[in-house]
Amino acid sequence: MSENSRPGAAFIAPEGFRPDFSKGLVPCIAQDADSGEVLMLAYLNAQAWDLSLESGEAHYWSRSRKCLWHKGEKSGNVQKLRAIRLDCDSDTVLFLIEQIGDAACHTGRRSCFYRELTRHGLEICAPQLFDPNKVYSGEKK
Amino acid sequence: MSENSRPGAAFIAPEGFRPDFSKGLVPCIAQDADSGEVLMLAYLNAQAWDLSLESGEAHYWSRSRKCLWHKGEKSGNVQKLRAIRLDCDSDTVLFLIEQIGDAACHTGRRSCFYRELTRHGLEICAPQLFDPNKVYSGEKK
Repeated sequence: MSENSRPGAAFIAPEGFRPDFSKGLVPCIAQDADSGEVLMLAYLNAQAWDLSLESGEAHYWSRSRKCLWHKGEKSGNVQKLRAIRLDCDSDTVLFLIEQIGDAACHTGRRSCFYRELTRHGLEICAPQLFDPNKVYSGEKK
Repeated sequence: MSENSRPGAAFIAPEGFRPDFSKGLVPCIAQDADSGEVLMLAYLNAQAWDLSLESGEAHYWSRSRKCLWHKGEKSGNVQKLRAIRLDCDSDTVLFLIEQIGDAACHTGRRSCFYRELTRHGLEICAPQLFDPNKVYSGEKK
């Protein structure tokens, strides 16, 4: 058990399964565990990592607000963690999640990656699901 | 057409479809366009972005080697770009790719994210497909 895993935590990380925070924040991809759709990328510091494992819900470090960010804390659109993957260099994290409320993006779309360029041109590949002004304010990475 | 798209380029980016490089490197997720599997995360600078759009194959900036990196240049395991997505803040890129040679990870695995923690414990979720020592040396992000 690593130093940050406590009895009762949602996820118990074995020794060595921890991002390398020695160079600062670590990027974290949130992917829909069922559809495989990549929904967003945010950043973790050690405390956000610990809280995510402890609670089973995604916590990030907001670079714009410079504070811990429990994703969905205002909107209710939390991200339930199904699994956590760590890359070969331990400098990137992949959260496999269940997105509550359907939309991960502060623009009201399911995914932040809603603009897609192909060889045929640009398309909007994720429709707007709600008006963000009616759901929350201020919650943004 | 943006300033970096030339006639004959694989992808022609319209005005505004360009990552914001003003704060430095931009993270870029490589996702298998067919299976949805997230294979790796690397970084782009402006030149890597331009070369990727121009050639239709993923180019990154190697942080460890401090040079442009045409992924697969040594191993032949290039990443053919099917589509390019940009997130809401234009500070993260998603490449939807066809991975030539099956493995994206320098460890010889399909994905760099081969370690998965669930509530049941840790598992290796991507088997080793080849011995990296026999395929290439020195190609590593």
